[in-house]
Amino acid sequence: MHGYVGEHKLLAAVDCIIFGFDGWNLKLLLVQRNMDPERNKWSLMGGFIKPSETPENAANRVLEQLTGLKNVYMEQFHVFGKPDRDPVERTLSITYYALIDINQYKEQILQNQRAEWFLLTEIPALIFDHNEMVNLAKRKLRYKAALHPILFQLLPEKFTIPQLQALYEGVYNTNFDDRNFSRKLLSTGLLLKLPEKDKLSSKKGAFYYRLDQTNYTKNFEKFLNLVPNPDKFF
Amino acid sequence: MHGYVGEHKLLAAVDCIIFGFDGWNLKLLLVQRNMDPERNKWSLMGGFIKPSETPENAANRVLEQLTGLKNVYMEQFHVFGKPDRDPVERTLSITYYALIDINQYKEQILQNQRAEWFLLTEIPALIFDHNEMVNLAKRKLRYKAALHPILFQLLPEKFTIPQLQALYEGVYNTNFDDRNFSRKLLSTGLLLKLPEKDKLSSKKGAFYYRLDQTNYTKNFEKFLNLVPNPDKFF
Repeated sequence: MHGYVGEHKLLAAVDCIIFGFDGWNLKLLLVQRNMDPERNKWSLMGGFIKPSETPENAANRVLEQLTGLKNVYMEQFHVFGKPDRDPVERTLSITYYALIDINQYKEQILQNQRAEWFLLTEIPALIFDHNEMVNLAKRKLRYKAALHPILFQLLPEKFTIPQLQALYEGVYNTNFDDRNFSRKLLSTGLLLKLPEKDKLSSKKGAFYYRLDQTNYTKNFEKFLNLVPNPDKFF
Repeated sequence: MHGYVGEHKLLAAVDCIIFGFDGWNLKLLLVQRNMDPERNKWSLMGGFIKPSETPENAANRVLEQLTGLKNVYMEQFHVFGKPDRDPVERTLSITYYALIDINQYKEQILQNQRAEWFLLTEIPALIFDHNEMVNLAKRKLRYKAALHPILFQLLPEKFTIPQLQALYEGVYNTNFDDRNFSRKLLSTGLLLKLPEKDKLSSKKGAFYYRLDQTNYTKNFEKFLNLVPNPDKFF
């Protein structure tokens, strides 16, 4: 076979949008670029797809090379394909996103001097169309978090209701009414109360909970009420 | 600038997964391939991305060239990127999907002798990984249809409840209990009953309804109960 003669060839890259939660704040993992153009500017973690790789392989390799992070579940997100998005040469970018518990990976990530967690509210100007990528991924995260208990998986094994609320407030960049939020949350049947309290964060203390996966399917519909009017966020 | 030296260049194509509803049946639009390899086999509608095009531009051009369909709302879906998915040359495929009301576009599509609607339950063997694309898109459609009233937009301006139920049954490849479905549907507040009846489809006749967009936001949560246990479908 001779190939498809005369068709337009281009480069394909992957870019990884890694959100993390440290127990109280939602953050984004960025890296300082060490190549031209835009050397030393902040960037998502990315790289070109190699001949033997699927896009998924490339995303995992890039993330591991740049941060030491292995076996992170990433989901394929959106393709960014404006012809001039990379000023050097036409490059399609296939983006991936992940949600991780920062404390679980702290040591590994710190191995790379150029990688850093930024608060979602303090993201700097990024190279190319990376800010657009991050903004679209934030919308996607809001959408998914309103319809599935995915955020629970960002928490440590035991957590308090104020912590979970802080996470939802970070994702939606808003404040939820404390009493409503905690009432709806407990009515999902997804949480098991533990006997211990966290006494560091408030005078009264807050009970720890853990996720109860056994009721997941049965309680799917109740969960859907947790974020009021989800459609206004996406 | 000299380009990124030594990086792997590849072809990028788009493939369009077009679902349609004809009033009673859910179908998929396919085209008989007129190039090698796999000439004359059935295929999704696709083509290579050109230098000046975004992937979205390419998807719209391909769809219009092959079917005459213009201004169809397509959503970017998944990238298929196994290195050997096209036996001729490495080609990434960015897929798009759309949902259309077949009757609204009947004339246009029939202009192309090679294009044809297939029942979702009777899809033939397709080229390359196109069956995999269709299967993944069916899952996505189920997911979206359980969480948003998108299927209502596939219906003619006035429709009966049995028609809407046939559509949901086609998407989920299952039967819903008639009384439960119609009770949940009416409780969404999304439908306005019209004075006329459809007397062709049954002896008793079925009232026509139309969509009432004004209640959409208010009734979002009620809609979410329409498909029981949506998680079992995806």
